[in-house]
Amino acid sequence: MTSQDIFKQIVNKKSFLCVGLDSEFDKIPSCLKQTNDPVFAFNKSIVDATAKYTIAYKPNLAFYESLGISGWQSLEKTVNYIKENYPEIFLIADAKRGDIGNTSKMYAQAFFEKLPFDAVTVAPYMGEDSVSPFLSYPGKFVILLALTSNKGANDFQFLTNPEGEKLFEKVLKTSQYWANSDQMMYVVGATRAEMLADVRKLVPNHFLLVPGVGAQGGSLSEVAKFGMNKECGLIVNSSRAIIFADNTEKFAERAEEEARKVQLEMEILLKEHHII
Amino acid sequence: MTSQDIFKQIVNKKSFLCVGLDSEFDKIPSCLKQTNDPVFAFNKSIVDATAKYTIAYKPNLAFYESLGISGWQSLEKTVNYIKENYPEIFLIADAKRGDIGNTSKMYAQAFFEKLPFDAVTVAPYMGEDSVSPFLSYPGKFVILLALTSNKGANDFQFLTNPEGEKLFEKVLKTSQYWANSDQMMYVVGATRAEMLADVRKLVPNHFLLVPGVGAQGGSLSEVAKFGMNKECGLIVNSSRAIIFADNTEKFAERAEEEARKVQLEMEILLKEHHII
Repeated sequence: MTSQDIFKQIVNKKSFLCVGLDSEFDKIPSCLKQTNDPVFAFNKSIVDATAKYTIAYKPNLAFYESLGISGWQSLEKTVNYIKENYPEIFLIADAKRGDIGNTSKMYAQAFFEKLPFDAVTVAPYMGEDSVSPFLSYPGKFVILLALTSNKGANDFQFLTNPEGEKLFEKVLKTSQYWANSDQMMYVVGATRAEMLADVRKLVPNHFLLVPGVGAQGGSLSEVAKFGMNKECGLIVNSSRAIIFADNTEKFAERAEEEARKVQLEMEILLKEHHII
Repeated sequence: MTSQDIFKQIVNKKSFLCVGLDSEFDKIPSCLKQTNDPVFAFNKSIVDATAKYTIAYKPNLAFYESLGISGWQSLEKTVNYIKENYPEIFLIADAKRGDIGNTSKMYAQAFFEKLPFDAVTVAPYMGEDSVSPFLSYPGKFVILLALTSNKGANDFQFLTNPEGEKLFEKVLKTSQYWANSDQMMYVVGATRAEMLADVRKLVPNHFLLVPGVGAQGGSLSEVAKFGMNKECGLIVNSSRAIIFADNTEKFAERAEEEARKVQLEMEILLKEHHII
């Protein structure tokens, strides 16, 4: 998949929404708990209900790993189902991996060969050789953590060198030597929307994956104001606020309504910014 | 498990060796490829051959994830086998996870509840709330990345603030407010043994997990010279140099020889440093 393919989807669907499949077992509606694979049944219903408003899905690996082997089975079925039925949709493994070269190569195999993901989130701490094995797959993306949306982001990401450069800025600058915007994106949290303006100066063309809208409190219009570029350049994630909007038999219907609401907001913002 | 339990093992076995179970499928001896689960058969043989010289095993998650569901089955069988047969041995999930709080909580469940690991390696980039969920399990350890052994370590880990403090030093200092040496250890690469002296000034009492001895080129005596404290304070990992010492039917015998060689070197160093 290319950046242009993602942009086409944004224009067609009038949306830059990513739905995070943080499918926590305990929160899955009880009406699904008797099925053979409740996590997959839940994901399938959520995907079928929201796909027309959604340009990307982002399973959060932790929620599957926490269930052991059955979790990996649910994950595999989910991503294969999405790829088969909605091949245009961008599929992100939210895994935050990163290790020495020979190990990152194995993680890349896990997500890009064994599973049909289009992108994987990667932590930058170990530097270039921890990231580059993911870049040897044409049409696949690394989404590198830059500025995250959590409180702990303050612990290290703002460490500043004597020239005034912060760690997250150094990550943005240095990693551009590793890959261009057709293989690299960045995670930039929505709870710091005003920081998106600084980020955009450093990476004008790259897509930014923005978590933290919805349950984590970020504002969509602020994100668009500071982060949008000529080809949108934003993939905004919402997880719990959509997938767990309701826990009755109407969960999928309610998820659809929530996704539709966000899509309508996005449509207005895309028009305001003259993208559609 | 406590630091004292680990120290007792070091004294009893006259060793501070961790064997890394980077059990890459393609490198597993062909004589095992016809078995039902070659990865588990390989790990079981390696563990049985090396356990008397080894205080810790460290499966590298990437090598299991790259095989999909069957890889997770092999991992689960391996760690359960080790816990049942060698309960004194420290079991490390080399996973390098780290995400926002509700997600790290799920990773902690994966490694500390679903699987019987004693410790997990964690990346520090996202700060305190990405680490603290792993710390809510008494007797379990976080092993935080500080200074890694790979070339890419130079990209960000040495970023220096105006007071001369480097990122990895800030990680070592800040994280001591999160947990003491009974719940926290640090990854410090052996290819920079002289840096261990600086690390020891900041964390005199913590165990350090030192990768990079063997295939990655670090020297054991240098590591001991700069990194050992009164209770050893070192867990030195070797992976490929031991587990893939041979690929014939004698692989386990040869792995045992290699582990024994390292243990003998360690015994001399422990005596030189008056620990045994």
